[in-house]
Amino acid sequence: MMHLVIADSELEMIPDEIRNHPSVRMGHNRILDSSLHHSAMEKIPDGRRRGRPDIVHITLLIASESILNREGKLRIYIHTRNNEVIYIKPETRIIKNYNRFKGLMHQLFEHGKVPPKGEKLMEIKKEDLDTLIKKLPGKKILFSEEGKRKEIREVMERDAVCIIGGFPHGDFISPVHEMVDEIISIYHEPLPSWTVAMEAIACYENKFISPIP
Amino acid sequence: MMHLVIADSELEMIPDEIRNHPSVRMGHNRILDSSLHHSAMEKIPDGRRRGRPDIVHITLLIASESILNREGKLRIYIHTRNNEVIYIKPETRIIKNYNRFKGLMHQLFEHGKVPPKGEKLMEIKKEDLDTLIKKLPGKKILFSEEGKRKEIREVMERDAVCIIGGFPHGDFISPVHEMVDEIISIYHEPLPSWTVAMEAIACYENKFISPIP
Repeated sequence: MMHLVIADSELEMIPDEIRNHPSVRMGHNRILDSSLHHSAMEKIPDGRRRGRPDIVHITLLIASESILNREGKLRIYIHTRNNEVIYIKPETRIIKNYNRFKGLMHQLFEHGKVPPKGEKLMEIKKEDLDTLIKKLPGKKILFSEEGKRKEIREVMERDAVCIIGGFPHGDFISPVHEMVDEIISIYHEPLPSWTVAMEAIACYENKFISPIP
Repeated sequence: MMHLVIADSELEMIPDEIRNHPSVRMGHNRILDSSLHHSAMEKIPDGRRRGRPDIVHITLLIASESILNREGKLRIYIHTRNNEVIYIKPETRIIKNYNRFKGLMHQLFEHGKVPPKGEKLMEIKKEDLDTLIKKLPGKKILFSEEGKRKEIREVMERDAVCIIGGFPHGDFISPVHEMVDEIISIYHEPLPSWTVAMEAIACYENKFISPIP
């Protein structure tokens, strides 16, 4: 099983301190989005990296629609900057439309789960990264520009916990370097979260489940 | 070099016949989007598969941000249902925000290129799929549910033209089966365009450019 943890993701509701800023128009949802709220975000700490539900969305679409997930060999977790963890049932179909995805995330923050009634597909809990990672079985591999330059296949194991950043640039906020077995850098330039997810998933498929039935 | 062709993509401006439909609100752009215009789209032919700029966007993000593209070994082409081809300079950074991406596509349809002034990063031309594919060097591989069940690595060559569908379901509109050397199916279920793109790109990287410098 491969566990994919998208860590320190920049996914959150619009913070109270800018809720009344003129540039923050109240639309269908209250998910912070830098492409809409950038002028208000100058006023909050870390404003230049926050509000990136797009990164979470694209990375989730890649991971959840992968062959690895369809084969039942992938589990996906979103850890946020505010130390929440979103648990996602493997059979969840992620909404492809970005605006609707943000609406879903709003619902998740508000109700703690989606759908709000019936069997839940996603659930959000107050939990820090260390607590999450300690629960997951397998070799803990952190993907970071600061890591040692290695091929993924050298370090990938059948039980692996792959941790990638869910933020646009900069370093992890959580002290993740202390939580893992190995820290690797897979390319000489920064890569977006979904490219790292794609490389890790494709490597696992290639090493452990290929040829695909 | 790998050439990736996203064929029969459901990317277009709002058709004239529904431009005045009450459900079609004129927003910042006029790109047809099934998540916004679904009730009007019941009135147009193939309305249940059209209006999917999200598929093009996600697939483009995966491909353009891949290591393969960063290594200069990938070329990407979007062919649309209306027989247009979008040529994309390899160094183009695709806008990550979906709504802004649609704005860019609108600009592209309107001006024929983006940015409208200065050196163009994307250009759109009237051209059918056959004309495009004939120009591209390498083995032509079509990814289709109708194809023979094979591993990609069995058929991938150093010069390859990989053709994937840019639509949500159904079959190709273009007579693409006649244009290719091989038709393969890589999984026993339909896969979204970006998952197929990811698999093809990862396979090429693994076979021809790994270990990555």
